[in-house]
Amino acid sequence: MKTDLDFLRPYFLGPASENEDVLEALLLEFLRDHAYWRRNFHPEDGQRIDPGARHSAEFQDFEERTRRELFALSAELKRAVPFFHPRYVGHMSSDLLLPGLIAKLVTTLYNPNNVSEEGAPVTLDKELRVGIQLARLFGFATEDGAEPCAWGHLTSGGTVANYEALWNFRSVKFYPLALQAGAAAAEFDPDGVGPDEKPLTAYSAWELTNLSIDETIALRRQVARAAHDREDARMVHRLRRAVREARLESMGAASFFIEHGIKPPRLMVPVSAHYSWEKAMKVLGLGTANLCKVGVDGAMRLETDALRQCLDEAARDQMPVLGVIGMLGTTEFGAIDPVHEIVAERAARRESGLDFGIHVDAAWGGYLTSVFRDPDESFVPRQTVREGFEHFPSEHVYQAFRAIADTDSVTVDPHKLGYVPYAAGAFVARNREVVDFITQQAAYVFDLGDDESEVPRSEKLHNLGQYVLEGSKSGAAAAAAYVTHRVLPLDRTGFGRLLGVTVRAAERFHAAALTMADRLADRVHLVVPFEPDTNLVCLGLNPKGNTSLAAMNRFGRKLFSHMRVDPGQPIQIKEFIGSYTSLQHGSLPEHHAVRILADLHVDPSGFADLTGDVGAEADHIFVLRHTLMNPWLMTGPADKTYIDLYWEYLERSIEAVLAEPAMWRSSDESIK
Amino acid sequence: MKTDLDFLRPYFLGPASENEDVLEALLLEFLRDHAYWRRNFHPEDGQRIDPGARHSAEFQDFEERTRRELFALSAELKRAVPFFHPRYVGHMSSDLLLPGLIAKLVTTLYNPNNVSEEGAPVTLDKELRVGIQLARLFGFATEDGAEPCAWGHLTSGGTVANYEALWNFRSVKFYPLALQAGAAAAEFDPDGVGPDEKPLTAYSAWELTNLSIDETIALRRQVARAAHDREDARMVHRLRRAVREARLESMGAASFFIEHGIKPPRLMVPVSAHYSWEKAMKVLGLGTANLCKVGVDGAMRLETDALRQCLDEAARDQMPVLGVIGMLGTTEFGAIDPVHEIVAERAARRESGLDFGIHVDAAWGGYLTSVFRDPDESFVPRQTVREGFEHFPSEHVYQAFRAIADTDSVTVDPHKLGYVPYAAGAFVARNREVVDFITQQAAYVFDLGDDESEVPRSEKLHNLGQYVLEGSKSGAAAAAAYVTHRVLPLDRTGFGRLLGVTVRAAERFHAAALTMADRLADRVHLVVPFEPDTNLVCLGLNPKGNTSLAAMNRFGRKLFSHMRVDPGQPIQIKEFIGSYTSLQHGSLPEHHAVRILADLHVDPSGFADLTGDVGAEADHIFVLRHTLMNPWLMTGPADKTYIDLYWEYLERSIEAVLAEPAMWRSSDESIK
Repeated sequence: MKTDLDFLRPYFLGPASENEDVLEALLLEFLRDHAYWRRNFHPEDGQRIDPGARHSAEFQDFEERTRRELFALSAELKRAVPFFHPRYVGHMSSDLLLPGLIAKLVTTLYNPNNVSEEGAPVTLDKELRVGIQLARLFGFATEDGAEPCAWGHLTSGGTVANYEALWNFRSVKFYPLALQAGAAAAEFDPDGVGPDEKPLTAYSAWELTNLSIDETIALRRQVARAAHDREDARMVHRLRRAVREARLESMGAASFFIEHGIKPPRLMVPVSAHYSWEKAMKVLGLGTANLCKVGVDGAMRLETDALRQCLDEAARDQMPVLGVIGMLGTTEFGAIDPVHEIVAERAARRESGLDFGIHVDAAWGGYLTSVFRDPDESFVPRQTVREGFEHFPSEHVYQAFRAIADTDSVTVDPHKLGYVPYAAGAFVARNREVVDFITQQAAYVFDLGDDESEVPRSEKLHNLGQYVLEGSKSGAAAAAAYVTHRVLPLDRTGFGRLLGVTVRAAERFHAAALTMADRLADRVHLVVPFEPDTNLVCLGLNPKGNTSLAAMNRFGRKLFSHMRVDPGQPIQIKEFIGSYTSLQHGSLPEHHAVRILADLHVDPSGFADLTGDVGAEADHIFVLRHTLMNPWLMTGPADKTYIDLYWEYLERSIEAVLAEPAMWRSSDESIK
Repeated sequence: MKTDLDFLRPYFLGPASENEDVLEALLLEFLRDHAYWRRNFHPEDGQRIDPGARHSAEFQDFEERTRRELFALSAELKRAVPFFHPRYVGHMSSDLLLPGLIAKLVTTLYNPNNVSEEGAPVTLDKELRVGIQLARLFGFATEDGAEPCAWGHLTSGGTVANYEALWNFRSVKFYPLALQAGAAAAEFDPDGVGPDEKPLTAYSAWELTNLSIDETIALRRQVARAAHDREDARMVHRLRRAVREARLESMGAASFFIEHGIKPPRLMVPVSAHYSWEKAMKVLGLGTANLCKVGVDGAMRLETDALRQCLDEAARDQMPVLGVIGMLGTTEFGAIDPVHEIVAERAARRESGLDFGIHVDAAWGGYLTSVFRDPDESFVPRQTVREGFEHFPSEHVYQAFRAIADTDSVTVDPHKLGYVPYAAGAFVARNREVVDFITQQAAYVFDLGDDESEVPRSEKLHNLGQYVLEGSKSGAAAAAAYVTHRVLPLDRTGFGRLLGVTVRAAERFHAAALTMADRLADRVHLVVPFEPDTNLVCLGLNPKGNTSLAAMNRFGRKLFSHMRVDPGQPIQIKEFIGSYTSLQHGSLPEHHAVRILADLHVDPSGFADLTGDVGAEADHIFVLRHTLMNPWLMTGPADKTYIDLYWEYLERSIEAVLAEPAMWRSSDESIK
């Protein structure tokens, strides 16, 4: 029964370290390769540590202490979370792909610093190649000469990549206003520039904050060219300086917005988005009040009608829209937002003079694009993709993935569905020219974009630290992602095949849930609150006869208490390790909440927006959350799969918690 | 001659991998320990990868591809920078301490995610312990019950730690205004609060933006207590909501500053500060125009008089001062700013109602504090410290390190002088209560600080992702720093002893430079432009007879071309690898520039602020820069030290470049 999963066997160390010898042999080989590389650098120098050193008391003392501390660490790590095992279905962690793991370990010995080529002549190039690999996965053009040409780089995680998206958007969005102000200060008014081919002074502030990224880049070039055509070096110098001083990055947001009489920009994200978006608004000083939280539908996907309302409001009040964020796999539910509809909506809005960036937060789902990508890089027809699955991909999901190519930038986490070690996030942008707007280097040169011919763009990007939020960064992470993508290409034959297994596991899990709902119907109401888009499945559970939301939540929490990570206990006593999430009041439309509660046979009137302590047990709907990314879920001992074992386990747990009603039922909440 | 350095021999893998067997044995032991740990988690499950798997074509194909890619990576890494070798004196990288390296490699196998305890029950605790280790190094109190009590955590690097410092400062600085506005909205006016024990409404905006961090924390508590004393749950609820909505983090900086009629805050950093501070002002939307670049003295240290002028200006114009940044070891010169004078200046300013945070950017120099710290944690008298050195520490340097304990927060990079792998920066704060101002969690609870009793603070910090800029983060970095600090304590007997060697190497190098200046006087003017404060030494070099700055710079660049990293060449052809920096026009006081140029026998009139292309060779003074952090610099082959070898090498290089005057001298720049 398991033969179609055989291809996975060489990928990982394995739940029982079945491939320990493979890991050990390769690691040892390249560890020694590193060690003996050292001896090739000035071998004539001899040794700094003489062979007798190890017999000295001081050497032995240090080695003893090292061994003692490492032993203590290793002993404590016995309480680490067994992410690698199919009995772990909790958060977005799993086993590591061997090629990337070994690349990471080996490269750490060389310890390259990818902030610049002087610290990483090898791995910085790898990082930019990873950026290109990911850009091509998403359908962006990357050939030198392509316009626009994409690029990408690694970050410490998705959170930083999200910050970077906003930082990029803001820099470009408000550049045209600075250009106009700077030109005015330098008494220079180029004509025939911008999309309307009119004088720069003739653009209104609203028009200038509603250019696309590509239009802004083009405008900057036109103005620089016009300035140089004047052959007045002093004027160009004045202009450069004036533009620099007029930028939001120089003036600060407050002074800039006051100066131009414009309202602070808005960002639109679905209510289901990761909390890093709130954090980003705070960190960048934009304010969470300017974060428009767009409602979701019954599948927890951004609702395009709700987005339209937000956009209408922004257009009406002339609030610049910094961007719209689509989630490609939410952290809580794996839901896929309608990226294609966001793209279509932008096209429509552009007609009426409202423009904005579109960023896809695909920290979770980005790698799933490989399921849709052929080795020849074409986007596979939906029917072909469907062959491997029961339901996946829905037309909605299919269209959403296809539309990434039409967005401006993407967050994707190699340390999630890329199965490489932490910390490895990535930021990918459709148009690499945006880096000119954020560079820290020689502002006087770049603020006008007028040295473009000097150094090819692809070369310039090797000054990575100039274009990214972080400074010093690990070259080992780049090597890990690069080698992983080389061994397992980002298409259907590589990553797609692996990730297809996780989607199939989720389908199997979902099907089992429906079967189990019947089987358990005499004891609990079991509900899958929304169709899973990818490989996360949530479950709501309510004891039969109970109508109290608070009691249901306590029941769920009690159930979960057996599957949570508990630093105080040996991990061996856990049969499965899961996670949970909560549908907060207000985070989903009322009628969907009512529908879910009705399915659970819970009285919806108890569901309330409570901010005090009293009754806080009823301001949310508690659900078990299962991340089904482990490659071995559809295998298992004795001809059972781990999915079977999970459901057997859950049934036993339900029985156990039902047998102790005092733990979750309140005296005043009678079973009806 | 080398016996006093014997203690270093077990610390590192070594320039010739002398300790390869030690690394290999320990790594293998704990690799296997990990592998067999896996088998203890549900051993009854058996194997998922059957023993015959490796004989299948698919397995072998994958393994082949893995080996091929790893081989290719390892081959390319032969061009990596040999940071580990004493012939590398370039940037801030060196060999890695074995305990931390092994801890990093081993923990990577477990791949913990330190965003929360659910992903890292072991290493998250280690990270907070590293924070405490570093806090104690700096002299902050960390005992539970201490007020204030410090904390710290790791970041991906110093740049992110610097962002975090500003983010923390901003959150606290503008909280009192939000509290006042929120209280007004909730029709609540507590009396007897704040440092003046008066009604909250009686404070002016200027007063409220000039409270210390501790005063703001106290004010928040007082107001929360007063609100609860009213026993009006609705009012408390209204107040909480109103405060939240009134915060800068909600409103955005622009609306907040307009609403309160206050000017955007200023940040003061020395002109010599790392460029991440400019980046921080841009990213946070504060604007580089609000970055007050404080002048430096002839040793490239912040000049306190210049700081006073900036503060006078801010006080006069009622511009809130977000903070003053002191560099503890600048990236370019290793210079130590007068932290003690900044602290004294703040004390004086507080008297006149001007308050601000003080952050120490000790990304480079932070670990050097261990030289001053006794195992009993006392700060050692200067005379005692001096015993191991020729000149170090000057009274200035000594006082600066001692004053860190009186600042608010510190950036320090374990991946620099902590000799652990990338990426590992750290942020340490004197008062851990600041996290309440930046938490993302359940804002309705925390915005008033009124659930303090529920969960002990030290527990709460385990929700690390709530209090830091980043999200998912590597637990392996925490394990590396922790084990390193355990084996090599952060005091004179541990890290101090190792880092003392680097300072002695710098003193030796400096002394050699003075000797060589005489020896080379017939060929070049060799100048150490400023006394080194720590373990970085710069050199200016001008061919005898040349007075042209541009020609001198070309000469230096040519000299450097032999010691730069060149991805196109095998590293073996490099005798030494160095780095350089430039003293930009305007980045140091005119009279110091004139003094340095005079010492170099260069015509100072050629030194100009040029922003065009023409003559850009004379808008800076090119200097060679030497980071002397390698532990083996004072050892070497055949009874010579690497410092001796470097000078021999430099002399040969000088000869070679002098022999090709066409490469650097222009036809119109005659040798006089």
